[in-house]
Formats: sequence, C-alpha cells, structure tokens
Amino acid sequence: MAQTPSIPKGTRDFGPEQMARRNYIFDTIRSVFRKFGYSQIETPAQENLSTLLGKYGDEGDKLLFRILNSGDAFAGVDTSLDSKALSLKICEKGLRYDLTVPFARFVVQHQNELAFPFKRFQIQPVWRADRPQKGRYREFYQCDADSIGSTSLMGELEMVQMVDEVFSSFGIRVCLKINNRKVLAGLAEVCGCPDKMTDITVAIDKIDKIGLEAVEAELRERGLDDKAIGVLKPVLTLQGSTEDKLASMRGILATSETGQKGLDEIEELFGLIKDAGVTCNVELDLSLARGLNYYTGAIFEVKALDFEIGSICGGGRYDNLTGIFGLPNMSGVGISFGADRIYDVLTGLEKYPGALSVSSRILFANMGKEEARYILPLSVSLRKAGIACEIYPDSSKLKKQFDYADRKGIPFISICGADEIAARKINVKNLASGEQKAFDYDDLEGIIAFI
Amino acid sequence: MAQTPSIPKGTRDFGPEQMARRNYIFDTIRSVFRKFGYSQIETPAQENLSTLLGKYGDEGDKLLFRILNSGDAFAGVDTSLDSKALSLKICEKGLRYDLTVPFARFVVQHQNELAFPFKRFQIQPVWRADRPQKGRYREFYQCDADSIGSTSLMGELEMVQMVDEVFSSFGIRVCLKINNRKVLAGLAEVCGCPDKMTDITVAIDKIDKIGLEAVEAELRERGLDDKAIGVLKPVLTLQGSTEDKLASMRGILATSETGQKGLDEIEELFGLIKDAGVTCNVELDLSLARGLNYYTGAIFEVKALDFEIGSICGGGRYDNLTGIFGLPNMSGVGISFGADRIYDVLTGLEKYPGALSVSSRILFANMGKEEARYILPLSVSLRKAGIACEIYPDSSKLKKQFDYADRKGIPFISICGADEIAARKINVKNLASGEQKAFDYDDLEGIIAFI
Repeated sequence: MAQTPSIPKGTRDFGPEQMARRNYIFDTIRSVFRKFGYSQIETPAQENLSTLLGKYGDEGDKLLFRILNSGDAFAGVDTSLDSKALSLKICEKGLRYDLTVPFARFVVQHQNELAFPFKRFQIQPVWRADRPQKGRYREFYQCDADSIGSTSLMGELEMVQMVDEVFSSFGIRVCLKINNRKVLAGLAEVCGCPDKMTDITVAIDKIDKIGLEAVEAELRERGLDDKAIGVLKPVLTLQGSTEDKLASMRGILATSETGQKGLDEIEELFGLIKDAGVTCNVELDLSLARGLNYYTGAIFEVKALDFEIGSICGGGRYDNLTGIFGLPNMSGVGISFGADRIYDVLTGLEKYPGALSVSSRILFANMGKEEARYILPLSVSLRKAGIACEIYPDSSKLKKQFDYADRKGIPFISICGADEIAARKINVKNLASGEQKAFDYDDLEGIIAFI
Repeated sequence: MAQTPSIPKGTRDFGPEQMARRNYIFDTIRSVFRKFGYSQIETPAQENLSTLLGKYGDEGDKLLFRILNSGDAFAGVDTSLDSKALSLKICEKGLRYDLTVPFARFVVQHQNELAFPFKRFQIQPVWRADRPQKGRYREFYQCDADSIGSTSLMGELEMVQMVDEVFSSFGIRVCLKINNRKVLAGLAEVCGCPDKMTDITVAIDKIDKIGLEAVEAELRERGLDDKAIGVLKPVLTLQGSTEDKLASMRGILATSETGQKGLDEIEELFGLIKDAGVTCNVELDLSLARGLNYYTGAIFEVKALDFEIGSICGGGRYDNLTGIFGLPNMSGVGISFGADRIYDVLTGLEKYPGALSVSSRILFANMGKEEARYILPLSVSLRKAGIACEIYPDSSKLKKQFDYADRKGIPFISICGADEIAARKINVKNLASGEQKAFDYDDLEGIIAFI
C-alpha cells in the first residue's frame, strides 16, 4: 500500500536550514523595499487565463501551468476538438508566470483605492513549465518592486539605490549595468530599420553569450543590411568611461530624437546616482537589451563580481504595462531580485551570517516526568524573555538527546536530575566550549547572560 | 482590446493595509513557533496527485485543483474515456489541499536528514475548489506546527502553550477545548458498536451546530440502537469541572481499556497545563470530535470568547500520519491556526497595533529637480539609520503630494524650497498635530528624534 513519496520534477522542498537562509534573503530585500516606501501586496496564485495568455509571447503561453476547471471539466465539452482548443475549454485558470502581469492587473482593478505613484513590492512564487535543469525550477520566488504612475527618473534612482543597499547588506560586490531602450530604438532608427528594434535588441542581448560574430550573423539573418550592421558594430564594442560612451553615442544618434532623449535620461540618472552616493559599481552598457519587450526607457541588470553566475537582478522602465487591461499612460519602473541565484552566490561566497541555522538557544534534557515538570516554569520564563528553548519530550538516553541538540545546532544543554531538584539548581552546558555552570533556579538573569 | 481585469472567484488580492495586518498575524505566530524550537519548512505548491488522492475522502478528492500536464496533455490520450479517467490521464499533479499531507510526505522523503522528534512549522497557502462563500476561500493560508516522532504528552502541552501565547499576544481572549479520541473510541466500545466510532464522532461533532435532538436522529440513522444512544446521551450533556467530568467518565468507560487510557492522558495533560501556568481558559469538552479522522489521541479546538465565529485554531495527536507513505509508527501532534478567521476577529475587536499601516515615516515633498537633489543625501542618511522615507518623484502641486502622504498614512512631511536650501535647513511637519520645526541639514539626531 505504501507509496514511495516524491515531488514533481523541477520543484523543491526547503528544510529548516535552507528556509533560514531563504528567509534571510527575503527579509533583507523586504526591509530595503520598505525603507524606500514600498508597500507589500499579494495576488492569488491562480489568475484567469484571459489575464495571462498573450502576455509572454507564444513560448510563454506554452509554459503556463493550466488548472483543470473544478466540477466535471468535460461536461458538455466536445472532446474531439484539437488539443489547444480543448485545453482552453477545460482550463480557465492558470498559475501566475511572473509578478509583473498580476501587478498590472492589480493596479487596473484597484486603481480607485490606490495612492499614485503606487509603490509596491511583492515576494511570491511563480510557476513555469520550463524544462527543469541546474538552477532552473518550475516553482521559484520572485522579489519585485515597482513604482507606477510617475515618469520621474527618481524612480530609476530608487531602483539603483535599492540594488546598492540590498547587495551591500549581503556583502556581495556587484556591477549594475544600465542602458536605455530609447537609445536602442534610436539605433534602429539610424540603422534605417526602425521596425527592427525588437530584432536588434534580441540579437544584441546575446552578445555576452555568443560573441560579436554570431550576433552579426543573427542580425543579418533578421534582415539587417551591411550599412545597418556597420552602424551597430562600433556601438556593441564601445569602450571607455560613461562620459566617453555618451559623447560617442551623441554623435552616432545625432539624427534620432528618441535616441537623444534616451541619452538625456542616462545622463540625468548618472548624475542622480552620483548625488545619492551609490557605492556599487554602476556602468553604462550599451549592449544590454534584456529580453522582455515591454521596457521603454532605462533597463538594468546586476552581476556578481566575485561569483560566476548569470544576472542576479534586473528591471527597467515601462510606459504601458497596464494598457492591455484598459488603463493607458501609466509609466512605471520596476526591479526583480533573483532569490535562487542570490542564494547560490551567498552559499558560494560563504556570506551567510553565522547564527542563521540556530533554532533553540537551549535544550533541557528530559530525565523523567518529575524532572520535566521541574523545568517547565523556567522554560516559560525564558520564552517570556524572548529566548527560544525546548524540553526534550521523552526521557530517552542522554546520548540521543545530545545528538538531537547537535543536529539542530542548539548551542546549550541543561541536564537537571534529582540532585538539581533537591538543591533547586539549574545546570547549563555550552556544547561548543564544554563550559558548564550551575545557577540558582530563579537566577534567570544569570542563565540568560550565560546562554 | 482592453480586457476588464478580474481574479478567479474565491481568490483575493491583498493590498498594503491588509498585508500589514496579515504579516502581523503571521509574524506573531511564527515567533511563537520559533520560541518553542519549531523550524520552518516549505513544500511545493504542486504535489503529485498520487500523493494527494485518497487522503481527504471522496469529497476532498473532488475539491483538489488539478494541473494540466505540460506539453500536449492530450497526446496519445483516448479522449473518449469518461471524465474521471480522462482527467487522471491529462493531470498528474494537483495543488496542495492542506499542509498536513505534504508534511507527512516531507518527513518520509527526508527522514534520513531530520532530527527526531522533528518539530516543524509551515505557513503557506492551500487551495480547495470549494464553493466560495463568506469567509470561505479557494486560496487561503494555513499556519501549522507539528512535532513528530515522540508519543510524549509534552507535545500536547507545547501545542496548548503555543495557543495560549499566540492569542495572548493578539489580545484575544479564547477558550481552548480539549478532548481525546481514545475516549471517543472507548465510548463506541461501551455502546457496543466499536466499528461505529467514525459515525459517532462525525455525528457528535455537530452537537453545537444542530443540537442534541438532531444528533440523536443522526446517530439513529447511522445505525445506533436505543441502548447505545442511552449510553451516549449523558456524555454529550455532561456538566461540571474537569475533575467532575473525568470522574463520571471513569465510571461510564469502566470496561474500556482504550477509554481509560484516554482519560489518563487527559488527566496528565491537564496536570502539565497547570504546571506550565497556561493563562487561557482550558476546558475538557467531551462533545469535541473534529472532522478529520486521522487523530488518535488528544484533540483541540480554540474559540474566541468575545467574537462570534467558528473555531480559530485546532489540532490533535495522530499515530500513523506517515504510514501511508511507508513510514509506520511515527506518532505526532499538530496544530493549525486559521489566519483568515483570526484576521476577522482582530478586525472585529479592533485589536491591531496602531502603527501597522504606516509605510514611510516621512515624505519629502518635491519642489523641483534641484530641491530633490538637495534632499537626496539626507534621505540616504535616514535610511542608513533604519528610517523609511521617500522623496515624492514629481514636482506636482503640493496638494497632490499632501494627499499622497495622507493616503499612505505617512505621518511627517518635509517641504524644502529655495529658502531652506539657501539656509541649509530642513523643514519638518507633523501632519497629525500640525507642529512644524526647522532643523539644520546635518542635525540628523534632531530630525530623527522629532519624527
């Protein structure tokens, strides 16, 4: 009868140690978001498929997890339909694929209750039916902050400041790369193919991965001619300071109003970043494009300097996220922290604070029912003082009880038997140093100071 | 093109104020769990249907949300099958229905990594395709703590202590009702129908809702004869102190070994509760049965004394939760807090701490780009000191900026224009009292003390 238990591929269980680390990551990010005036929201795991479909491209539609209608999903359904049509009949809901589309839906649905600019953060799991592989899961958390309802570059600055503060809290050295979609649009314009901006950005997004030659080939494949590629090539390999790059780009984009506007924004943002005393490495990277095509202004990406992994954070400015749901002209800017990759970086660099995995401060060994009752009032007092402690439930062999403390990382143990009860004493042992002390039962302060 | 956005029925969005309140509830419960040495785990939202099916009865199976297999779910599937068979072919996974079955699965799957008794807590959403109605949702959070791997009544005591501490933290007066399934089994035995324990408990579980007469009718319908009902009736209406009730029950259950064992457990647990100085009202309620049939020992239920609502917390002892997954003889005890009902009670009794909805402490009005840059370094210093603050992103009309502070519940506003910049001053106004003060720009301490 017994089944061998397992979980669906691409999903994970998180045990106590992993949870302690994950909570450390979420708590750190959350506290930074809050310090900048972002408020938390949560949206349901299930959204109507009409909300989700068509928002992530054809590929994204395929990766949506769909939920079978409850009740008899097939009642009155013509099962001879093709798979695609049939699945739309029997599934009206799907699991959220990211936090951005639900956020846009939320803003439109609740627009009359919100104070704009609406600054929200959201830390929730998302689900994608991607092929699972190392570092890619079918359920993972996103940590997003967005500010919507203002076009001010103060929004972009806040994103940069939050990146800076989050990663300096973690002790992770990062480089924050910035670009601007208007500059990319301007480039498409001066290349003579303004309708090809998407092709250009998708292609040059790959420059780090496949190199200049392959990108050139891809651009040609996407219909760009030699002249256009001639304009683009020097841009992709631009070197020097931000000022140098801006100066070169001013020339290249001389005839593009949009391009100049993008350069203005970059310049102003870098000025604000300097004023705000941002400490991390911030760099203009004109090859940065980011895959998602809803960005219209600044785009960001963060890389760890001391650990080889993809981008650990990214975001940008979008002008029309809520338009699809009937609320036009809402400009916003957002950022998303990749919790799983940050987890890997913190693990790889051993940057977790030491005390994370500790559960209780002290374990009271159980020497019998009477002895356990003797300890009870003390355990109550310790918890009242905010100290986590536990009484081992059974009077098992001491070795087993020590082993329990050891496996849970409990640093102190107290063993009180008949002698201690007679003398109204409490014995406490530091398991790391071996140091042992006896306290009067009522010397709560002394015990707390020791543990 | 624009769609009217909505969310699936029975699901909810949580805005900033609701989230602040919900986080207060979760944080309070979490901190109590931790103080008793419980460690957090998380399991995936999706479980294999083979893990979930058959664990919640036929009714529960119907209420599981099933997830369409990814890729082409219908490839190679005979769509002429009946609905039930067909849905099993095209859906191999479902959303978790509670936290108990995933916990059991987790314990079995990770048994070699865990320190037993394994004390875990878990705060995650669950999904049920129930018909939505007031107070019943299709997605809701459960907050569970379980201790598994020990038969000691210290486990039951911890549950009682945690209930006591959680609700006294909330300022909610409660009554904790306790019963024991062994007593109910003993009753079935002395009624002469030991195989009818489930029928008896299901029926008497309803005594509060439908009254004695209807329960009697239901018992008769379930096949109990007059003699059996004659034995049960005085039990259902037993009055007096715990001691009185226990004494009566000792007599009624004289011939049942199981029943006597249950009474022993109750007696010992009440002794421990007294020793631990539990402050809430704890009461033996022999009509308490609880619907779920995996309980084998103590069972609990908590009701608010000053607010009319169903049970806000419940739990009990189970002896064989992990048996179905191949790990027999693991006794455990667990408790589940109903976050949504606790939310309603706290709202109804107005017991939320006052400061919950505050986002930033201070809003810096935006009087123009230069003025915003003037404020920037101060905002950085305040956040370094742990104070949430924000600069309004646009130099909009002041009325709009004040309105923003008001809607977000930001208690202080600072308006600095050309005069303040010239004098290197910071103006701060308390929006509630109207009190206004000017500080030197670098007088961080003064500003912090004022806000």
